[in-house]
Amino acid sequence: MTAANNTVSIEKLNNFCIEAMLKAGMSQENAQITAKVLVATDTWGTFTHGTKQLKKLLKNFRDGRMDPKAVPEITKQGQSWALYDGKRAMPMVSSVKAMETAISKAKATGIAYTVVKNSGHYGAAGYYAHMAAEADMFGLSMTNVDPCMAVPGAKEAVLGTNPIAYAAPGGKEKPVMLDIATSVVAASKIFKAADLKQPIPNNWLIDKDGLPTTDPTGYPAVGAIMPMAAHKGYGIALMIEILTGVISGSAFAKDVPCWVLEQPEPVDQSHTFIAIDINAIMPIDQFKQRMETLTGMIKETPKAEGTNEIFLPGEIEYNHKQKVLQNNQITLPKDVMDSLKGLAEDYGLESQTLFS
Amino acid sequence: MTAANNTVSIEKLNNFCIEAMLKAGMSQENAQITAKVLVATDTWGTFTHGTKQLKKLLKNFRDGRMDPKAVPEITKQGQSWALYDGKRAMPMVSSVKAMETAISKAKATGIAYTVVKNSGHYGAAGYYAHMAAEADMFGLSMTNVDPCMAVPGAKEAVLGTNPIAYAAPGGKEKPVMLDIATSVVAASKIFKAADLKQPIPNNWLIDKDGLPTTDPTGYPAVGAIMPMAAHKGYGIALMIEILTGVISGSAFAKDVPCWVLEQPEPVDQSHTFIAIDINAIMPIDQFKQRMETLTGMIKETPKAEGTNEIFLPGEIEYNHKQKVLQNNQITLPKDVMDSLKGLAEDYGLESQTLFS
Repeated sequence: MTAANNTVSIEKLNNFCIEAMLKAGMSQENAQITAKVLVATDTWGTFTHGTKQLKKLLKNFRDGRMDPKAVPEITKQGQSWALYDGKRAMPMVSSVKAMETAISKAKATGIAYTVVKNSGHYGAAGYYAHMAAEADMFGLSMTNVDPCMAVPGAKEAVLGTNPIAYAAPGGKEKPVMLDIATSVVAASKIFKAADLKQPIPNNWLIDKDGLPTTDPTGYPAVGAIMPMAAHKGYGIALMIEILTGVISGSAFAKDVPCWVLEQPEPVDQSHTFIAIDINAIMPIDQFKQRMETLTGMIKETPKAEGTNEIFLPGEIEYNHKQKVLQNNQITLPKDVMDSLKGLAEDYGLESQTLFS
Repeated sequence: MTAANNTVSIEKLNNFCIEAMLKAGMSQENAQITAKVLVATDTWGTFTHGTKQLKKLLKNFRDGRMDPKAVPEITKQGQSWALYDGKRAMPMVSSVKAMETAISKAKATGIAYTVVKNSGHYGAAGYYAHMAAEADMFGLSMTNVDPCMAVPGAKEAVLGTNPIAYAAPGGKEKPVMLDIATSVVAASKIFKAADLKQPIPNNWLIDKDGLPTTDPTGYPAVGAIMPMAAHKGYGIALMIEILTGVISGSAFAKDVPCWVLEQPEPVDQSHTFIAIDINAIMPIDQFKQRMETLTGMIKETPKAEGTNEIFLPGEIEYNHKQKVLQNNQITLPKDVMDSLKGLAEDYGLESQTLFS
């Protein structure tokens, strides 16, 4: 694969992912759901959480850490909530179903939440929040992840970088969406720096002695990320741990296995989704008009020296997606291409047809 | 008042606040509710948001910006939500009622949210979240505030420091509680530095040209606070604005009037409360046991050099409260004493009996 052929049509990328998942034993329906999540994430330019992850996700099947045939199901529910047993199925499948359930229950009562246990890496938290926004709802999405983050005063990891995302319908059909790790940076950025052999700022990681380091190699086996905004990020990460791992009855904090390490334990992450039916409290058109006013206020704020444009949460992702859709092709970074090529090798697929 | 008599019993402080509110025209019931919120906040050591604020809150009545006789009421509701018109009543009264409604509706459906519009400064966000934890629920509390925070790339304020708080029942009856502004610091810390004539770190505020400054004077008329964790805090503050001011149909962002400035506009803030009935999804005793395990993991994490103890969110406040309850007296900082003395003067109360 050369730098010349790093662009691919959305359809080809989608079909390639589906083909790999079928080979890995997933059903056509579940492969389609999962491909949609991963490819949409790539269209946003969030390449760290898109199709690049499929190779490692399918390895979880081969290692017996996840189950390609599993069918997630609701084990307990009430009017405005449901608990899913993900049964270690592809986490995108459980998560899409769980957000769909939250949306449908919120339609009836105004707000609903769903929790998925026995799950793994669910990709971009924002995808599921965005589903709610597309259904004219406010959406929240969060997951616990394996412990790789220290808390203020600790010298080793105790919590995950527990991401959280929200989305709300915006003006002119452009939703507002925030998708963040509660750490100073997403773990993927540390992996990227390690891949590229680049040093990192000294407030990202502590080393084995609890001291700041600029060396990203060795992580996550050695060291721990720091939370964003010190005690504030710590507190929010803990909230996510409570609303996912603790409340689901599944693993939490130090007991959450890392899904990317070579280890035999089944994955054991939990995700939580909340949907609020805006239309119940305010006519959706009025809400969107008000969002238009709010986002306009922000965009039109006088700019600081050196700033050309103030971006809304999710706007850079939205702009990336628009460009991809206009061209009907997406330009993939080298690490994504390498991962897809490796995936093709894992399952005897023709990766060159993907990029031809 | 001298440094010698800066301690007061909880009962005296409570009664003094009630007396002032009765003089200001509030009902006995509403004065009691409000005093309970403000005094509890002081027992946590969160003096910036406790009884110190009563003087300014009652001035809002005298200035016609709030209404001491107003009775907040639900104007629209569904199974799992309600919209309150606060009618510019004392915000603690509307907020306590709104969280009570969220708790009661969550009991029926598993989760519920309530929104209060036409309100003012509601004090410590954490108080209302803590109400949910005391009812064996998970609680979330948030409010918009007047614009005093810039967003990345802006050179002036566009959003409030929009605080958010959560609380969850913990092990051994000790709840976990986080109460934070989404700014680098709470505005009250800047006011405190200005009061004490101390410089501030240069990442707290930008000046009138959008440049970092160490001078806290002039704020909030001049300058803007920066969000915590850059785009992350910006995104969370925006979420709070959407879930409070936008969804309530009330003022949002740049249009929220500042409640402490000398200006005639009625207050116009909105608050949102969410309660999740833990017992629906998991027996509460099991949840508390799991919380005990989680908090134990964190407390027992090996400590970084120079750290004696790792604190849980809300633990310092809890410890402060325990000490106050043991001694049945609370030691107030000078700025709180001065404010209470001023309040006594405003209403012809005997402040010396409070501290004798």
